[in-house]
Amino acid sequence: MQRPGEFEIIRRFFSRQRVMHPETELGIGDDCAILNFAAETRLALTTDTLVAGVHFFPDADPMRLGHKALAVNLSDLAAMGARPRWALLALTLPENDPEWIAAFAQGFFGLAERHGVQLIGGDTTRGPLAITVQALGTAAGRSAVKRSGAQPGDAVYVTGGLGLAGLGLKIRQGAYDASDEEALDRLDVPEPRVGFGLRLPEFASACIDVSDGLAADLGHILEQSAVGAEVDWENLPLSAGVCRYVADSGDWEMPLVAGDDYELCFTAPAMKANAVTLAAEATGTRVSRIGTIRAGSGLSVRRAGRPERLWRSGYLHFVSRETTDESPPR
Amino acid sequence: MQRPGEFEIIRRFFSRQRVMHPETELGIGDDCAILNFAAETRLALTTDTLVAGVHFFPDADPMRLGHKALAVNLSDLAAMGARPRWALLALTLPENDPEWIAAFAQGFFGLAERHGVQLIGGDTTRGPLAITVQALGTAAGRSAVKRSGAQPGDAVYVTGGLGLAGLGLKIRQGAYDASDEEALDRLDVPEPRVGFGLRLPEFASACIDVSDGLAADLGHILEQSAVGAEVDWENLPLSAGVCRYVADSGDWEMPLVAGDDYELCFTAPAMKANAVTLAAEATGTRVSRIGTIRAGSGLSVRRAGRPERLWRSGYLHFVSRETTDESPPR
Repeated sequence: MQRPGEFEIIRRFFSRQRVMHPETELGIGDDCAILNFAAETRLALTTDTLVAGVHFFPDADPMRLGHKALAVNLSDLAAMGARPRWALLALTLPENDPEWIAAFAQGFFGLAERHGVQLIGGDTTRGPLAITVQALGTAAGRSAVKRSGAQPGDAVYVTGGLGLAGLGLKIRQGAYDASDEEALDRLDVPEPRVGFGLRLPEFASACIDVSDGLAADLGHILEQSAVGAEVDWENLPLSAGVCRYVADSGDWEMPLVAGDDYELCFTAPAMKANAVTLAAEATGTRVSRIGTIRAGSGLSVRRAGRPERLWRSGYLHFVSRETTDESPPR
Repeated sequence: MQRPGEFEIIRRFFSRQRVMHPETELGIGDDCAILNFAAETRLALTTDTLVAGVHFFPDADPMRLGHKALAVNLSDLAAMGARPRWALLALTLPENDPEWIAAFAQGFFGLAERHGVQLIGGDTTRGPLAITVQALGTAAGRSAVKRSGAQPGDAVYVTGGLGLAGLGLKIRQGAYDASDEEALDRLDVPEPRVGFGLRLPEFASACIDVSDGLAADLGHILEQSAVGAEVDWENLPLSAGVCRYVADSGDWEMPLVAGDDYELCFTAPAMKANAVTLAAEATGTRVSRIGTIRAGSGLSVRRAGRPERLWRSGYLHFVSRETTDESPPR
């Protein structure tokens, strides 16, 4: 295949797409995209970067990578109860490999089209492989679902299963020997909880997506809502593979601290429990109640009826010195 | 200084700012930012990435880099005639150096506050130094200034001066020996033509910002407008330093092909010449008429009364094989 130039890359791989929103006055190909909103609009905006060697292996399958780069952003929109609509893509590539780019675009647009996302702009640069996506969604209703609304007495829920991506990472790193496609798929091609996210405003008092691990992400809800929480380890939704890993390794913390699951962790008042169940059924989403919000601060985990201390927090890109000075007594 | 964690970085350096727009329902600190538009709104959106070793030297002054990362995006908004309002910042850092980050934030917010830009979100990751900014502006009037509106007979204009950043790069690379603060400043801390850009809808038929070099960027206007242009080399706005460089080196192409000037190149019908002059005076912007749009295609450069052939095009991150196979006959 002949090597295309920068503008040829944009034209060939990123300009043809099926999703076109009526508000898009101008898409790819000018200095800016233009969105034209005729009436009152609430926009949700987010950006996330994936860096080779940090967030994925440099030899990762480009099609799965294209999916994941968009998925992690749609997950943020889902956590606010927003409907995905547009995206911009900043792609930094070490070389100009048309087959790699074509596969990346296929993975990106595959997910984009399923969720009605139109790519309206971007930037292609040379450099160490990294992908930054900005996603925009529309938020209906009077207020978005923030991290700061949890109240004592609210139930704590999580969608899907926890620890799957963490298990996938251990398998791929060769740190644990198992054959678990579900875990590897969760790591590579997580499914953002878009459909369930759109139902959140009906019942959720707070929500966050689980990208850095449940303990860290629920921790943000607790901090920003100025409350504490009790979580029962036995109520965590764990796949058979994750249960086997915990039994084999004794590493019961993993499902609480491993990142990259892109599930939604949310809180809801007790009187909304039926609405939660209905939304879960309507969207085909497994939802588990894992704990309760309490007055106070911090996360308490009970396991086999006893309070446990978490020694590891979730994945932090830059861990402060205070945190790293303290090590688990093993 | 104690090394801050990721969330501490966000809190300490990027959460305090003076610009707050009434539409900003939710800024930094949740899964998404929320903008709430009560009435009809036209939004302009753009994203640009700067990569260490490609767009800037790895040891670049972080304050100047913070300025430039935002400036190159505001330049895209200016080229559409949009008013800058919001930005998101995706920052990938090899290490966690609070002094570097503080200086970067100072440069970023210095420019942001001058142009009324509120930072509403972002992402901090570890990896090879790179910065992706997404900027959002509001576009008044009935239509944005696109690349596709140039008509035969329109005059071709450019703001400020050309080749300054190119000269700055040659000085910094040690390829040319001169002391030229103006050129180094243009390379490091370009000033986006925001004020003049807001006047563009009054007269411009097409506009682009000069980031990849005048020949390449005017080339996009020509291609998307399906027209050609004649440019007179003698009419290019060149500083004394750039003139000296051209005289010393014989490299007359440099001001046409060097990138990073972040001036605006625009076209306007002859009957709008007065409006151009008025806008230039009102905003204190030097504006030069450098040529004329013609029917046909491609860019013709006349120098000393003779047509010249350009052997180099502007900076392309990925140059196609056809282009690189052809070398200048020197």
